[in-house]
Amino acid sequence: MSVRGAPAIGCVAAYGIVLASRERKFRSTADLIRHLEHTREVLAATRPTAVNLFWALEQMRRIWQAPPIQDESPSALMERLEDGARRIDKEDIESCRRIGDFGASLFGPKSVILTHCNAGALATAGYGTALGVVRSAHRQGKVAKVFVDETRPYLQGARLTAWELEQEGIPYEIITDNMAGHFMKTEKISAIVVGADRIAANGDTANKIGTYSLAVLAKHHGIPFYVAAPFSTIDLKTPDGDHIVIEERSADEVLFINGRRLAPTKAKARHPAFDATPHELISAIITESGVVRAPFDENLSKLSSKR
Amino acid sequence: MSVRGAPAIGCVAAYGIVLASRERKFRSTADLIRHLEHTREVLAATRPTAVNLFWALEQMRRIWQAPPIQDESPSALMERLEDGARRIDKEDIESCRRIGDFGASLFGPKSVILTHCNAGALATAGYGTALGVVRSAHRQGKVAKVFVDETRPYLQGARLTAWELEQEGIPYEIITDNMAGHFMKTEKISAIVVGADRIAANGDTANKIGTYSLAVLAKHHGIPFYVAAPFSTIDLKTPDGDHIVIEERSADEVLFINGRRLAPTKAKARHPAFDATPHELISAIITESGVVRAPFDENLSKLSSKR
Repeated sequence: MSVRGAPAIGCVAAYGIVLASRERKFRSTADLIRHLEHTREVLAATRPTAVNLFWALEQMRRIWQAPPIQDESPSALMERLEDGARRIDKEDIESCRRIGDFGASLFGPKSVILTHCNAGALATAGYGTALGVVRSAHRQGKVAKVFVDETRPYLQGARLTAWELEQEGIPYEIITDNMAGHFMKTEKISAIVVGADRIAANGDTANKIGTYSLAVLAKHHGIPFYVAAPFSTIDLKTPDGDHIVIEERSADEVLFINGRRLAPTKAKARHPAFDATPHELISAIITESGVVRAPFDENLSKLSSKR
Repeated sequence: MSVRGAPAIGCVAAYGIVLASRERKFRSTADLIRHLEHTREVLAATRPTAVNLFWALEQMRRIWQAPPIQDESPSALMERLEDGARRIDKEDIESCRRIGDFGASLFGPKSVILTHCNAGALATAGYGTALGVVRSAHRQGKVAKVFVDETRPYLQGARLTAWELEQEGIPYEIITDNMAGHFMKTEKISAIVVGADRIAANGDTANKIGTYSLAVLAKHHGIPFYVAAPFSTIDLKTPDGDHIVIEERSADEVLFINGRRLAPTKAKARHPAFDATPHELISAIITESGVVRAPFDENLSKLSSKR
């Protein structure tokens, strides 16, 4: 959890490969590549849900598998790896800005936006996905207020999203996750925007635990529910949400805050870190190549082949 | 917040009147009654939402307004007040046991029950309302597991409900509030049972913040949603949920846990302590006089006049 946020995890994995290439002196390029393959496996085993991890590692692997591999010196390959990681990093920021602009176009003046977890600059290479949309909409003068789910158990909303919005001077209020329905009913909420850890081919979306509940509540209240994510989060090889592995993390992350136990000594807890939101509950997926609407399977695959 | 839980608040208010009657030597019964009227106003101003507070104070007022008030000595009235408070206390426990038994009849074997906040022995004079139902169902061997919403911001679920279930040896798992939808979708949940702070004449129910979201989620998943409460929580003078005052408490209760700040220094938060669940989302209200179903306005008023 030193690194979190699907796009940030992808970028850091890419730089992890770069660092591995410098871990020692390699006798040969083949020796270096063996070490990279090993590092790739170690990094791929760190988190199961965010597909950007696997996507970034695959991008990096293509570099060491691409010609002119046979004649290339270790140092030349090291250079190409660093270029590759920097490209992933730079492209993520550019993608976020485009996501922001496409997303902002969906909002009218005086919008009240609810967001969950942190899909901001701190979850990406910069700017953010869901918060990128908020940032762009704010720059266009469209944001009246942001409701920030605190996002238990890790409190990414209260700790990170609140901090980002504070820096930007965007008006916001932190709420506990269980207040979302109440405010959808009692105050005008224009839309919900969240990030994603993996989007399946049919549009089903894995994201921070609590996202699914929000989507159901949004549907009940007739509020648009938007997912903002770069194409590196879209996994066309996963057919639907049932095929996305949901990471179950330590129950202690639920039972303790700041090292202090919240519940009785013997208490047991559950901690699925993500949930899957069926595409039927998603109004649109905001990508760097445009806003995708239902039918998602068709439109995601179309947009993907165009890219 | 030294006392919480609607029925417990009612009992404690009644004993508060008893304590007030002993605060000093009263020259006359009229003098004592003036002090009781003043105390009643002070106690009535402590919390706006739980109607049991006002109900219990009204029960106590009837004692000092009832004959033989004119000829009665202060000490005789004091005795009648104590009897009255003890009766409210004893009747609450008996009501909870009856609620438990009526509620348990709604469950089949191997039930998985989700509950929110604490509507247990610690929220009542004893036994509990929603947890009374769980207790009775458990004694009948019907409970496979209880999902306990931790219930932010005050964590009554993680702190109190988990403790009560642990004492009773009832299997349970604490979840963060935002996991409820995920588990409704991915595991078989038989029913949701919650307590109430005030039930309006049409069945709309104010209860701990997060209850409304749960009710919407239950409807989406076709899971029965039960409210368990004694008649002292039913307020036929309040027509519907829109007329129930929702207490807005300090944002610090959201922003701090155990005295440690969770969010950035300048962060703002909201803290409605309750929400209102429309009767359309409630499958049944479990009272000490029986299980009430829709149409609630008709059936609540019928049952009330029968009592």
